[in-house]
Amino acid sequence: MANNLSAVPHKLTPPDRQAHFGHAGVVLWLTGLSATGKSSLAMALEQALTVRGYSCYVLDGDNVRQGLNSNLGFSPEDRTENIRRVGEVAALFEDAGLICITAFISPYRADRDRARQCCAQPFHESHVATDLAICEARDPKGLYQQARAGVLDKFTGISAPYEAPQHPDCAVNTAGQTLAQSLEKLLVYVLAQVPICRPN
Amino acid sequence: MANNLSAVPHKLTPPDRQAHFGHAGVVLWLTGLSATGKSSLAMALEQALTVRGYSCYVLDGDNVRQGLNSNLGFSPEDRTENIRRVGEVAALFEDAGLICITAFISPYRADRDRARQCCAQPFHESHVATDLAICEARDPKGLYQQARAGVLDKFTGISAPYEAPQHPDCAVNTAGQTLAQSLEKLLVYVLAQVPICRPN
Repeated sequence: MANNLSAVPHKLTPPDRQAHFGHAGVVLWLTGLSATGKSSLAMALEQALTVRGYSCYVLDGDNVRQGLNSNLGFSPEDRTENIRRVGEVAALFEDAGLICITAFISPYRADRDRARQCCAQPFHESHVATDLAICEARDPKGLYQQARAGVLDKFTGISAPYEAPQHPDCAVNTAGQTLAQSLEKLLVYVLAQVPICRPN
Repeated sequence: MANNLSAVPHKLTPPDRQAHFGHAGVVLWLTGLSATGKSSLAMALEQALTVRGYSCYVLDGDNVRQGLNSNLGFSPEDRTENIRRVGEVAALFEDAGLICITAFISPYRADRDRARQCCAQPFHESHVATDLAICEARDPKGLYQQARAGVLDKFTGISAPYEAPQHPDCAVNTAGQTLAQSLEKLLVYVLAQVPICRPN
């Protein structure tokens, strides 16, 4: 089906975009169980980086599932397609020159590895590594309770697997930490990995 | 499937992003037959706007079909899903605060209208309105020839419909014009519609 396609190159090169934005484009991929705080961390990091002159965008699980991936469910195949599409979109944002922060449970290692391959080098896997018991005790949306009651099936950590990263580029355990403390750890990591090349 | 989703709001507001980038986020949606010059125009416009301080990104038909939409073909249903996904991704780039330029044949009016609805106000439909006979005479990839020979089926303009915009926000006819001339028309349109709010 694809043999009549011929990709048109951008006239802007990655160095052009880096000069424009003052930093390289990268993907910071947050993975972890439900209720670890991925979305809150992602949104806080987007703001903290923007204040420091970075150009950023968060792709968030629940938001993307209401738009781009609204035609996908939670079967293993649909979870894989969900993460495949997000990996491709994150790679587009990275190619555009932005820091793309993704906040998805992304439970399967193979799916995350495929997302990494879309983006090549500038992919930073960040494990939000809070224990299941703590996530379940938080349960801000009541989802764990519904999963235990069998109302929600295929729920990650309860009735569906979570394959933790074996060698994450960065890890944050939000247990017993304030959002500000967890944010600080991610922020320090990004500021070191993606230096600003010029004042904003 | 979506009743356990709760969209997490960004902490950055659209005015925050506008202040950061110096302009509003918008979608400039190029539609037209194959070989009208959509991709060349889009890439040239991306560069011309970036030089002027805008932050931009082109979503191009052939590029996206090799990544995000690599699992779609050219049936009417797949064309619709192709444009649905692109509309959603363009809306994400617009939400991020960028000027997102899309270069897709996007032959169905209903599909383009749905893309417009994803983006609400900042959607500018731009018809690259070059006549079929001229596109067929150009035929840079030999696709029209293959379509006439029946090697390629469901080819827009030959064996599949193209529903031209009835009231496009902008129109460019590339027939008998240099790329620079066609580019100028689009550039003038964007500079007027999306003013820069601060020097870059």
